[in-house]
Formats: sequence, structure tokens, C-alpha cells
Amino acid sequence: MSTLISGIAASNGIAIAKAYRLIEPELSVEKRSIENVEAEISRFKEAIQKSTVELKVIRDKAEQDLGADKAAIFDAHLLVLADPELITPIQDKIQSENVNAEFSLHETASMFITMFEQMDNEYMKERAADIRDVTKRVLSHLLGVHIPNPSMIAEEVIIIAEDLTPSDTAQLNPVYVKGFTTDIGGRTSHSAIMARSLEIPAVVGAKSVTDSIVNGDLIIVDGLKGEVHINPTPELVKRYEEAQDAYASQKAEWAKLVHEQTVTQDGHHVELAANIGTPKDLEGVRQNGGEGIGLYRTEFLYMGRNDFPSEEEQFEAYKTVLEGMAGKSVVVRTLDIGGDKELPYLQLPKEMNPFLGYRAIRLCLNEQEIFRTQLRALLRASIYGDLKIMFPMIATLSEFREAKAILGEVKQELLDNGVQVAEKIEVGIMVEIPSTAVMADIFAKEVDFFSIGTNDLIQYTMAADRMNERVSYLYQPYNPAILRMVKMVIDAAHKEGKWAGMCGEMAGDEVAIPILIGMGLDEFSMSATSILKARSLISHLSLDDMKKLSQDVLVMDTNDKVKEAVLKAVNI
Amino acid sequence: MSTLISGIAASNGIAIAKAYRLIEPELSVEKRSIENVEAEISRFKEAIQKSTVELKVIRDKAEQDLGADKAAIFDAHLLVLADPELITPIQDKIQSENVNAEFSLHETASMFITMFEQMDNEYMKERAADIRDVTKRVLSHLLGVHIPNPSMIAEEVIIIAEDLTPSDTAQLNPVYVKGFTTDIGGRTSHSAIMARSLEIPAVVGAKSVTDSIVNGDLIIVDGLKGEVHINPTPELVKRYEEAQDAYASQKAEWAKLVHEQTVTQDGHHVELAANIGTPKDLEGVRQNGGEGIGLYRTEFLYMGRNDFPSEEEQFEAYKTVLEGMAGKSVVVRTLDIGGDKELPYLQLPKEMNPFLGYRAIRLCLNEQEIFRTQLRALLRASIYGDLKIMFPMIATLSEFREAKAILGEVKQELLDNGVQVAEKIEVGIMVEIPSTAVMADIFAKEVDFFSIGTNDLIQYTMAADRMNERVSYLYQPYNPAILRMVKMVIDAAHKEGKWAGMCGEMAGDEVAIPILIGMGLDEFSMSATSILKARSLISHLSLDDMKKLSQDVLVMDTNDKVKEAVLKAVNI
Repeated sequence: MSTLISGIAASNGIAIAKAYRLIEPELSVEKRSIENVEAEISRFKEAIQKSTVELKVIRDKAEQDLGADKAAIFDAHLLVLADPELITPIQDKIQSENVNAEFSLHETASMFITMFEQMDNEYMKERAADIRDVTKRVLSHLLGVHIPNPSMIAEEVIIIAEDLTPSDTAQLNPVYVKGFTTDIGGRTSHSAIMARSLEIPAVVGAKSVTDSIVNGDLIIVDGLKGEVHINPTPELVKRYEEAQDAYASQKAEWAKLVHEQTVTQDGHHVELAANIGTPKDLEGVRQNGGEGIGLYRTEFLYMGRNDFPSEEEQFEAYKTVLEGMAGKSVVVRTLDIGGDKELPYLQLPKEMNPFLGYRAIRLCLNEQEIFRTQLRALLRASIYGDLKIMFPMIATLSEFREAKAILGEVKQELLDNGVQVAEKIEVGIMVEIPSTAVMADIFAKEVDFFSIGTNDLIQYTMAADRMNERVSYLYQPYNPAILRMVKMVIDAAHKEGKWAGMCGEMAGDEVAIPILIGMGLDEFSMSATSILKARSLISHLSLDDMKKLSQDVLVMDTNDKVKEAVLKAVNI
Repeated sequence: MSTLISGIAASNGIAIAKAYRLIEPELSVEKRSIENVEAEISRFKEAIQKSTVELKVIRDKAEQDLGADKAAIFDAHLLVLADPELITPIQDKIQSENVNAEFSLHETASMFITMFEQMDNEYMKERAADIRDVTKRVLSHLLGVHIPNPSMIAEEVIIIAEDLTPSDTAQLNPVYVKGFTTDIGGRTSHSAIMARSLEIPAVVGAKSVTDSIVNGDLIIVDGLKGEVHINPTPELVKRYEEAQDAYASQKAEWAKLVHEQTVTQDGHHVELAANIGTPKDLEGVRQNGGEGIGLYRTEFLYMGRNDFPSEEEQFEAYKTVLEGMAGKSVVVRTLDIGGDKELPYLQLPKEMNPFLGYRAIRLCLNEQEIFRTQLRALLRASIYGDLKIMFPMIATLSEFREAKAILGEVKQELLDNGVQVAEKIEVGIMVEIPSTAVMADIFAKEVDFFSIGTNDLIQYTMAADRMNERVSYLYQPYNPAILRMVKMVIDAAHKEGKWAGMCGEMAGDEVAIPILIGMGLDEFSMSATSILKARSLISHLSLDDMKKLSQDVLVMDTNDKVKEAVLKAVNI
């Protein structure tokens, strides 16, 4: 019998395939006395042997499907498995204390892990992580428990998980992973953003999927409606296959707009730009007809490594993006770390509320060497395209002035040293803190542009952590409070002859777009994969009608009423 | 030589006394092999003996100075010290493993603590806390390290601490504690609020005081300027003694206003109400001439106990407060737990950002039995005075409507059962979330009043945790963004013929008061001890001048500029 679970539509499209549960089993270890030491030691050796064979297969498969760099981690694991400094003490402990292999392994490995983790050395900390992974694998063989290996997937599947971490997604092969669904998460969680960028249909926050689905169940993930069907009837599968075809033709239709401008029915032009994380994303921007980069999240340059990127490395990345966009506008956001984004080589104190803490510009104004290095790299790259610099998490005029003054100093130093810098570089801010939206009229006199970061703006304005399931009902992009703030920002920009963009999830949201068009938003920056759909939608809107609509919604009382009004006004 | 450390002025007044460092020493335990088991066991017994004597003295002293209930904790500690189930295994371990007493004590106690903590039983969890405290005491004797005992203070002192927890302050005797200063904290941290309520001068967030001050140093705490002087010159002491006298006469002057109304120079009347936590606080409200209760924080009824308070207990507390205020307005805020306020008997999942999480009305709308019990108790008490009910953390109209509907249902049930309920009970909301301030015009059509909760409103509007030192510079009550929101709320209320109050720290702030008077705020609710000073300040203000001032500050760009303008306009 078919079962339906509803969740949050996180990435468009429909997927039909068998379930693959990506769930870590619990590996609990008990201490037991053993009679036969010899037998216990061979049991342990056998588990090592099985783990070695398994790891070699995974390594080869990963190398073939995902490339040598993704496979290197498994080579490191194989080295650990063969290391007598770890293996011998485990066998000794079985022998001298007459304890079971699981316990001996767990105790010995824990000791090494703790020791390595406490060292102030990134290399040793990575060894600790390797030992942890390998211990888990050997334990699973000792306990006869199956551990899922995402890199071993070799048929079309739909991933079922509690949540997907960045390292999970790095191991997924998009050729085989047709869709996924998770218990937790929302439209702005890592897994959802990842799904949209890979164009994999996904439903997140579907609460009980891991409880309800077993390996091999036939699953339909409806990323348009946010629905997951378990073991659907043949009729339902057929209906969904038709819907899949219809979606595919719709996408083909949208694809025709790739070289078009973005214009409403009545000739009002706006810019559709893309959010990117690395120079690699440029290909997707081109394929989807992005008219510029509205948000280049530079923190990816700083992540997944052991030290800060050098000025030179940064310069190369920025230059690549600017050249790649061939004179189109590229808005680069300066480093936004802290909050939920940590760097292993920058030790920050644990905070009780990291989203309300020491992050982004707050950190950059305090740790100025980090900031100045980035600004130098940006200014040096500025001659290769149309660079715009944007500061994140600006809450006060003083912060903006300080950041801009530092930029001025860095520029002067470069010029004094004969380094070429573009003559005109616009300097703007993210509007993602309520105080800044409310003070937009004052800010507009001093900034060159605004880009509204709705993910954070909504969470602060509603005082609701967007990652927290229990208050996710308060993540309300159409709440008139949010719309009023957005309007304040756009009006303030226009009054001073500046432009206003938006680079949060809302910019690509089909219910929000009609309102934003009506309010006169100049630039919409979104996942590259949303651009063509948005361009198509906008081409069917009339600016005059949307102006009227955007006035009407401001005096409504709830998110739902606004949504209803938009859906009624615009036949989406 | 005199040294000056600057911090945050947290509680008015000046204190001069010797330093008392309330700082937990580090008790680190090493494992050692011992030769002489007998000697080690006697060393252990001696430490037990010393701890017992010490605890008895502390117990008696606490009983005498602070009352039997505060002393009971030490009786529990004495029982642990005499418990063979704990003591015998420690001695056995010394003997059987030839290890030192510190190690044996630490290992054995840790085992019991872990065991008790894992039990789903509040009584056992308290035993774990007792064992932890007692272990620390015995360890300190074994290691020859001194542990401070706040309840043993018997001379006038100034407390020097990293921070003060609620349990620290419960042990302090206000007769001897003349002032305190802490490394961390801000104006709205627990220690600061406590200091104002006890009228103890305090400087918090003074970063290095624990590093710079040793026991017995002569200290001046200037809670007016936020300064701490270490070993001041005799001249400086003399100057401060004069300032102390001046402050005392000023307070005597203010005291004359206790039975007066609160009126500006030009005859504009406002209400000065008090924030309270328990019926015990009523005495202070009367002594300080409070014209009502602007905020009754009912969560204190729920804290420091093992189960929810019954409807009857709540009824009694609410009745006491309503009767005590003899017909004056009493605004009761419904339960605000979650965030940084936890209840031991209500298990909530750990949240990554508790300030943006599941708390207050969000929790009450979901756990309705808790909410309905409180509302029943409130409605039953309503006939004993002028009750007003206020919902905290309202972010959307839907939440307010839902809360109000539940109130209506509970009322109808009571009436159906023949229970008497006051005919008119105003129902209002805290405005502490930016969305609600921005939507105040819509809310004003449905609520009876607003009370602006500035502590949270500022932290959400600036996206800065007010408890987090690293971003405390963003706690800016005079930032025009905050002032604009406050004005939106007041104007919206007045347009619909409703009243607007304020119950955050800002309501008692002498720089904010002139602006708030100018904006037409109707009610100011603050610590009782701030009322007379505020009444005096307001009596020197002209409404017309303040109206002008409050217009001017709205178009300024920074917190500092506003502060400067107020200080210039009002000769504070």
C-alpha cells in the first residue's frame, strides 16, 4: 500500500527510484571476559582483513567515479588499518586483560584519538578522524552490523537520511543519486541548497522518513510539492512518470530563454544574477543564462583546508571569476565565517547563540589581517572585470564606515606601490539585520548598493533560528513585516539613486518574485538552476499589476493571506 | 599605586571595601602510585574530618545569616561526607590499587555522579550535584588549596568574580557585600539585574578584574561611572567618600517623591511601574513608590523546584500580588521559559541558538496544558485587583489570535462552572521581536496594549546576543533603528486608542527616558529601585522640548550621536 509523507519542497523535480538508507548504525561496545584468547585475536584479525578488502574496493570505486582527490581519504584509512602502532596494542590488551576484541579496540583507539586530538597540530587532528572512521568500520565487522557506504552506490537510488552533511554530499555520485529526502532541515539548510545546486529533487524536514522507509522500498520524491510516496501503486508511478515528462518539457521550454534578457510583459527590465561559491560554479551560471554574479560567497575559499588561503590564491580565484564573467557584474561578499560556519584553523570561543554572535564583518573588523589580505586580493583582481565589493552582517553605520575606511587604506597602499586597481569599484552591504533595513534611508546616502540577504533577515526579524525545526513555522518570507522591510530598503536605495538587489532564497521564490517586481527590486540573485524558471515567470508578469499587488500585501496581516493573494493575482 | 579598570556601570552607587575573590581554584588530579597505603588512608580521613568541621561552621553561619532554607544544602553535604557507600570504596581503591587518595576520590566520585545523573529522577540528580560539591571540598583539603565560601563572609567586602551565578548570589549576605565587579557580563546579565534589585553598586564586564586584584586589596566600585579603582590613594578614597555622601543625599531627595505622581515640568503625566519576579518584591515596589506592576515575570514561580506549580499555588501568588497592589494595574506576563531559562522538570532538546528558539508563547501554544493551567489561575485571581494579561515573544498575528482564543476558551469553561472572573481584563503583548514592532499598526487593532521589551528587541534588531561579550558593542539602546521601532509601536497604539508601555532595561535608562517622554510612551516599567530617580528626572523635563528632541534623534546615524544629543539637551 502506498504511503505519503509530507515535508518541505527543497529542490524542484521528480525522482522515482529504490530507497538507500544513509544512516549510521549504533555501534555500542560492551566489555566481556573471554575464555579463548587465541580465538578472540583471530576474530579481530578477520575483521581487520574484511575492512581492508572493503576499503580497497571503496577506494577504487571512488577513484573511478569521483576522482583521485576524493579517493585519497580511503588510502589514509588503509594506512591506519596496517599500522602496527595501533593494531599491536589492541591484540596485547585482548591477551593481557582477557577482554573481548570490541572493547580492546574501542579503548585503545579512544586513547589514540584523544591524544591526537589534543595536539595543536592540524595533521594529527586529521589522523584522529581517520582512526575514528577506521575503528567504526572494524567494529561494524566485529559486531556484524552494516555501515552504509555512499561512495559504493552503483545503481539509481533515492537517499533516505536524517540529514546530509557536507561530507556526505561530497561522497554522493549524482549519476546514481536521483533524489533524496531527510527527516530534518528546511529550505535554507545545507542539504537543500546542495540539492538545488546539483539539480537533484529533494524533500527535507519530512520528519519520519527514516522510520518509515526500509532499503529497497520504491520511493517517489516530489520536489515540487514536497511529498514523498513510499511503495506507490503502479497507477501513481505512471502519473508521476508523466509529471516527470511534463517537467522535462517545461525545462526545455525554459532553456530557450538562456540568452534572453529578463523583461516583464510590459517591458520592465530586471537583472537575474547567480549565487556562487567557487569559480567552478561559473559553468552552471553560463548554462543557465545568469546576467551576473549577485553573491560570490568567498568563505568557501577558506573552508576544508588547514590554513588561511594566501593573498595569491585568493587573487587567482577572484580573477578567474571576474574574467569568466567577461565584464558582467560580480558582487563579491567579503568573508562571512562564524555563526554555523567554522574554520578549523581559526579557534573561536564556543558561543551560546552563534547566529547572534561574533561573525562576518564583526570578526573581520577585529581580526584585520584576515580582512586586509582579502581586500588586497580583491583590489588586485579588480582590473579583470566589473568587481563590486559587499560587506556582510552590517548592523550599524559605524561598522560600514570602518570597513570602508580599511578598504580605502588598502587601496592607497596598493596604489603607492604601483599596483593597478580598477578606477570604479562599487561598495555595498548585505541588508540582513533588521536595524540596517530600518535605517536604510541613512545607509543609502553612503553605500553604492544594497543586497538583501533574506535568509538571515527573516530569521532575525522573526527571532527564529531557521535551522530549528520547532520554530520553522516562523520562517515566513511573505510575512508583511518582512515585505515592509524589503520595501523600505528598495525605496531608500532608489531615493538616493542607488540599486537594490536580493541574494537570499526569497529572490528565487515564485511567490515572492511578483511582489519584488512590483516593489521595483533591481537585481535578483539566486541558485543558477532557478534563473531560467524565474525569467520565464517574470516574462508573464505586468509591472503595473505587480505594483498594485505589492501595495496591497503590505497591509495584510499574515504570511498565508499574502501567499493566497499572490497565487490569486498571478496564475502560477 | 592606584589602578583604574573600566567596565560597564551595572548598578548605581559607590562602594569602598576590601576585595574578596570569589573564584573557584583549579583542582586537577594526577594518578600516583603510593608506597604507604596506611598513611594515604589517614591523609584521606583527615581531609574528610577537616571538610566536616568546615561544613558545620558554614552551615551554622548560613543558618544564622541567611535562614534555615539556605542552610539545608550544607546538611545534605554533611550526609554525603558521612556516607559509607561513598567513603568505603574510596579507601578500598587506595588499598587495592596502591593509588593516591586524590585519584581514588576523583574516580570513585565520578562514577557515582555519572550514575546518578543518568537516572531519570530529580532527587538522584540533586544527589549527583551534592557529591560533586563535597568531592571538590575534600579535594581542596587533600591538595591544600583554598575554596572561597561566600556564605562565610563576615566583614564588609567587595566581591571580585569572573561572573556571578544565581546560586552564588543566593549565598551572598547583602549586609557584608558592599559591591561587586566581574570580568564578564553586561547591563542585562543576571548579575547586573540582581545587583540593581539588591541596590548593591556593581561594575560588570570589567574584563581583567580577577587578574588584577588579590584578596585584601582596597577597592572602590563606582557603579555610576562603571569604574573600579584598585588600592586608591587616600585622596581618591576621600573624594569617593564625599561622592558617596552626595549620592546618599540625592537618594534622600528622591525619597521625598515616593507618594508623588510622575509629571513633567509642563504637566504631562506618565505611569512609573515596577518589574517584579515574586510577591516578595511588592515591599520594594511600595517603598519606591511604584504606581503599578508593569511586568510580573511569572517564570520565577516555575523555577528552583521539581515539578510544575499547581493551579492553586499559582492562584495564591497572583492573588497576593493583585491584592497587594490594591487596585493598581498589574501586568502579568505568561510563562516565558526556554531560551536561557530552563526548567529541570521540562526536558527540552538542546538548541543551537536558544535565543532564536522554542520559548515563551511558542512553547505555551504547543504545550497547552501548561498554558491553560496558568490562564485558569490568572482568571480566577482576576477578581482581586486590576489584572492585565500579557503574552511574551509574539512574532505574528496568528500567534496572538491563537493565544487569545485559548484564553477565551479557558474563561468560558470557568464561567460555565460558575467561577467568578473579572469582567474586564486587558490582553496585550510584549513587543520584543522586530516583526511585531514593524507590524504594530495591524496588531494595535486587536491588542489592548503593548509593552516594549527592549532587552530582546535590541538583541534581535541588532542580531547580537546581549550575553556575548564579543558583540556587546552592538547592544545599542539609542541606535536610531531601535528608536524608530519604539516610535512605530507607540504611534500605532495611540492611533487605535490603546496604551504603550516599556518593560525592558531601557525604560529606566536616564538617556532613554527623555526621548521616550517625547515619543509619548504611557508607562515605564523598571526595577523598583530605579523608580524614584526616574520620577525626579521626569519632573525636570518639558514635554514640548522632549517632543522636539525625539524627532531630531530619529534621523541621526549612530547610537553615540543620539546619546550626545540627549545629554546636551537635558542637563543630566
